Amino acid sequence: MRYSLLGGGKRLRPILLLAACDAAGGAAERALPYGCALEMIHAYSLIHDDLPAMDDDPLRHGQPTNHLVFGEGLAILAGDALLSEASRVLAASAERDAQPRRALRAVREIAEAAGARGMVGGQAADIAAEGRAADLATVEFIHVRKTGALILAAVRAGGLIGGAREPALKRLTRYGECLGLAFQIADDILDIEAPSSLTGKAAGRDDARHKATFPAVLGLPAAKQRARQLREQALAAIARFDARAEPLRGIVGFVVDRACAP
Amino acid sequence: MRYSLLGGGKRLRPILLLAACDAAGGAAERALPYGCALEMIHAYSLIHDDLPAMDDDPLRHGQPTNHLVFGEGLAILAGDALLSEASRVLAASAERDAQPRRALRAVREIAEAAGARGMVGGQAADIAAEGRAADLATVEFIHVRKTGALILAAVRAGGLIGGAREPALKRLTRYGECLGLAFQIADDILDIEAPSSLTGKAAGRDDARHKATFPAVLGLPAAKQRARQLREQALAAIARFDARAEPLRGIVGFVVDRACAP
Repeated sequence: MRYSLLGGGKRLRPILLLAACDAAGGAAERALPYGCALEMIHAYSLIHDDLPAMDDDPLRHGQPTNHLVFGEGLAILAGDALLSEASRVLAASAERDAQPRRALRAVREIAEAAGARGMVGGQAADIAAEGRAADLATVEFIHVRKTGALILAAVRAGGLIGGAREPALKRLTRYGECLGLAFQIADDILDIEAPSSLTGKAAGRDDARHKATFPAVLGLPAAKQRARQLREQALAAIARFDARAEPLRGIVGFVVDRACAP
Repeated sequence: MRYSLLGGGKRLRPILLLAACDAAGGAAERALPYGCALEMIHAYSLIHDDLPAMDDDPLRHGQPTNHLVFGEGLAILAGDALLSEASRVLAASAERDAQPRRALRAVREIAEAAGARGMVGGQAADIAAEGRAADLATVEFIHVRKTGALILAAVRAGGLIGGAREPALKRLTRYGECLGLAFQIADDILDIEAPSSLTGKAAGRDDARHKATFPAVLGLPAAKQRARQLREQALAAIARFDARAEPLRGIVGFVVDRACAP
């Protein structure tokens, strides 16, 4: 559990949650345990995705994957235990929250985004699409769920915990949807253009097996164009927020620009 | 997810939760969604336990195991999604509860029992003990976690949702501890004495590989004696409860008597 949770990564989801809480006018410290739970969910999903029965990846963040170090049985269990621990931390956080019902809405949305209607559903659709020529609709269907759902949940949960009302929550939702898709497109671009140096993945490996990527269906230039467009849409969605939304603005810039440098 | 969740089983954990809620004076219907979540957690754990990297079992409830029908990748994801869905149902139930903080305590205890300090920790200890001669302390350590923790959580969560105060909760806890251990001993005995007819497992298979069972370290007669003793201790713990505890009394009788018929 520690090996994979603490073994690196950008911590995008917890940072997003804290930034959204901040933007909504809440104290980011109150959102911290929810952020830790999100990172546990993300870490568990990577452990299971890397298993031989799934993507069969030997490296993650430049290190041997969990099952290569501890064996498949313990890797499956480490993932299971991280997801369980995330649920425990979320419940304990909501229990302590001054507004437990509002916190529970955030917890419920995170759980929904992690499951069959979100991340796990996207991963299952990805397995189903393997080896077939994917069209843009299929690629979007997969990635809105596989990566987008948890990113959106991070933004919405941060907003909810920060006390955002419905209009602000709606804007944060639009921001989160654009960011989630932009993140996946950027990730697909980096897999092709800077495979091992930035992502720690074996060069071209992922792309060769999975066709369900944006560059594969759109071509690289159009994929970059799409990512930049999504960045502008995300920024427009939160244009009315004050300076406390600067971290959110910075994040979408970072995510898109590292793959589509101007 | 449906194949394994709806494919049979005794529904012991949800029934226990409803019975404990009843015994504590609550309305069992209010506890129903929590019971569904518990069964999802149980179903996920069986799918993952049966995987080739774990117990490598071909049959569950007399039917081919999930990975033999859907493949290992989807079986891992079905388990992951069931655990996520359990978290979602628990959060949604607590959100609707008239006393969300009390409900959250039940949710937190269920999540803790499912994770590294409970069920998953027990499974990991079981893997670690494989191939070694186990003593009674090791067998108890494994089974208190692997099976006992979720059974105890079912009883305590039912009590909490039913409105039990601390003294009643303490008695229910004692009942749940004795029942959890008795259940595992009975299960180990049935694996030896009635392997395929009652449990749907291949004859003697589990026992031949894993030495960490009660009959293996105590011998069959002493294991049966221990189970009967635990039944009496469980009954004594809830002796002060009124007629609404009859289902709890019936359950421990059923669990022990089917393996240790008088």
